[in-house]
Formats: sequence, C-alpha cells, structure tokens
Amino acid sequence: MAISDSIRRLLRYRMVLEKFKRFGWDTTYSYTIGKESGVSSEQIRKDFSKFKISGHKKGGYNINEILEKINEIFKKDVTDHIIIIGSGNIGEALINYGGFNKHNIKIVGVFDIDPVKLKKKYKIPIYRMDMLREIIERHKVKIAVIAVPAIAAQEVCHDLVDCGIRGIMNFSPVILKTPDYVNVYNIELIPILEALLYHSDSQ
Amino acid sequence: MAISDSIRRLLRYRMVLEKFKRFGWDTTYSYTIGKESGVSSEQIRKDFSKFKISGHKKGGYNINEILEKINEIFKKDVTDHIIIIGSGNIGEALINYGGFNKHNIKIVGVFDIDPVKLKKKYKIPIYRMDMLREIIERHKVKIAVIAVPAIAAQEVCHDLVDCGIRGIMNFSPVILKTPDYVNVYNIELIPILEALLYHSDSQ
Repeated sequence: MAISDSIRRLLRYRMVLEKFKRFGWDTTYSYTIGKESGVSSEQIRKDFSKFKISGHKKGGYNINEILEKINEIFKKDVTDHIIIIGSGNIGEALINYGGFNKHNIKIVGVFDIDPVKLKKKYKIPIYRMDMLREIIERHKVKIAVIAVPAIAAQEVCHDLVDCGIRGIMNFSPVILKTPDYVNVYNIELIPILEALLYHSDSQ
Repeated sequence: MAISDSIRRLLRYRMVLEKFKRFGWDTTYSYTIGKESGVSSEQIRKDFSKFKISGHKKGGYNINEILEKINEIFKKDVTDHIIIIGSGNIGEALINYGGFNKHNIKIVGVFDIDPVKLKKKYKIPIYRMDMLREIIERHKVKIAVIAVPAIAAQEVCHDLVDCGIRGIMNFSPVILKTPDYVNVYNIELIPILEALLYHSDSQ
C-alpha cells in the first residue's frame, strides 16, 4: 500500500503554509494555498473538513492555527521510534543525519549482518539481525528504513513485517512485496538522478 | 516539470530485470515483467518499442540484452557531474555517501554560504555561492541537489536555473517554482516518515 493521497496533500499544504508564515503572513485563503500547492480550492476545503481542520474561514484561514492542527494530526509532541536495517552508505548517512531529532523521530537501533560493521561505534546501538524482534517490541517500533543491498531487501522486508512493522521507507532498488496493510515508500536516489540526467540531456 | 512516466517505468523495469537476473534467469516475458512491476504487458511493449528496446521477443526477452539497452539509454559509460548546494545534515550525508561513484555520477562541488562550513575538509571541493556559475560551466553540470534550509531553497533554485541547471533533486520541504523545461524531484525524508507513522498509527 502507498501513502494515501490526502495525507500527501496535507503535508504539501503544510509546506505552503510554512512558506506563507516565513513571508510574515497571518491569514490566507484556500485559493492562495491552492495556487501554491497545485491543488484545487475545493479539494483543499474537502481535505480540511475531512481532517477537522478549521481556522476562522471568514476573512481567511489563520495560518498558525492550521499549522498547529496539521502538526497535531502528525503528533509532533510524541517521540516516534524507527529502526534502520543496513549500515552501509545510506544507513550510515541516515545515522549521521541530524534532522530526525528535531522532528521527534528517534532511531532506536541499526541492524546489520556484517560482523565488521557490528563493531563500529555509532551514537545509535547497532544490533545483529536476530535481535530484530526484541528491539521492535521493546521500543514499540512501527516504521523501519531498509538500506540493505537489493539482494537482501525482500527477505529483510518479510522479517520486518513478521515482527509487526507497518511502514517501510525503502532505499533498496527493489519493488517490495508486502501485505496490503503495510505502507511502503521507495526512495531511489540513483535512479532519480539518472532520470534527471536523462531528461537534461534529451532536451 | 516532473520526471516523465515512461522514464520512471523504464527504471522500474530495470529493477525487476535485475531481480530476475539475480534469480539466475536468462529470459523473461512482458507478462512476467508486468506482474512484478505492476505495469500492463501492453504498456511494457509500448515502452520497449518507444525506446527501441528489443531482445529476441520470440521465446522471451533476453534479460541481459534488455538491461544493456536500458543502461545505454542512461549512458552508464559516461561520468555525469552533479553539484550539491548546502553542506548541512543532508548535504554532508550525500558527500559521504559512497554510492554515486559506482554509478558514474560524480559530485564536482559543494556550495555553502556559511564561512565555518567552507573551512571544513571534504573529499569534494567546497565553494562559496558566487562560484556557482564558474563551476557549473567548467564541469558542464546539468543536475544539482538542493539541500539548504527551506527559507533559502527558492532563491538557490532561481540561481541554479539561471546558470543553466536543467534538473534538480530537492531535499528542502518547499515546492520550487521553475521554468517548465527544468525537472524537479522532491525528496521529503521527514514528511515521508511522518506520513508512514501516521498510517501505522491510524490502522
């Protein structure tokens, strides 16, 4: 299953509203959010109503109020735990990426099969794969990042789902098979760059 | 402008074919590629014909031949140059990410406005923003990665387009405005994790 369209749009509205806030604006209209986000005013009003977001519609929406409501939906006051499978290039980049903390997302463990990597010192504990279930249960982890070589990705995915993982951010260039209730989002850095390079050349 | 659907599908077929190759298969059928990629056989045959990919259709496609042809389309024998704007968390992670080289993609420069960061030692040269045009022209760069704070992203984007950049991978949580001939691909790590966390909770 993929991330739902309404949730993706909600995140898009947030980006737009944060931009308006940087402009120093206090209020805005669905028309203005629409123009900036490429979504129709009608759809925006539908989405806001679906997620029970109101903000003094008369005279425009109050930007801070809407942002607060969107952040409530994404529960920014609770720390969410995630794990990373694979401590290669991408896994290591994510471990060193400082951006998670300030968004209340905490990496509670990194997993690898390579005994050499298991001896590395990170600020995050690194575990053997057979510790997967224990760590997931201990920290109530629902989301995992797969950053293993393509050949191992499907097996890792299977183990994760088996241990109760409900959402996967997948950096491996593999189309993962999961049950329908598991959300998968693929990030293919190299293929995206290749596609951009292709288009830049063929114009 | 976004990356075209046919190019995205082509990259998807490659993932599937590489998987089949790992299985030890020599040949496959459009039906099999379709089942694995979620694309109809008809569409696959159309795409293959559009990109002049053939591979002994009778008795199945030859997997190695098709992979070779797809890689020709993405010109894996030429080194492509990219630049990164912003040496914060994400920029630094990308600099340390070792995966580009083996795909013939080379980061030829990193740009920042922060004098402290400009003094850091990386394996890639780090430049002041006013060197942008010179480096882009010297290395014939067409693709840039934006990894600056949201507040600076649109201005950086404008400068890049002005210097001839044709494709942007954007890690800033901002909807960039570009001319139609510039391809933009947004990677929103945190929003994607938030969306996955939201879905994992609401099920």
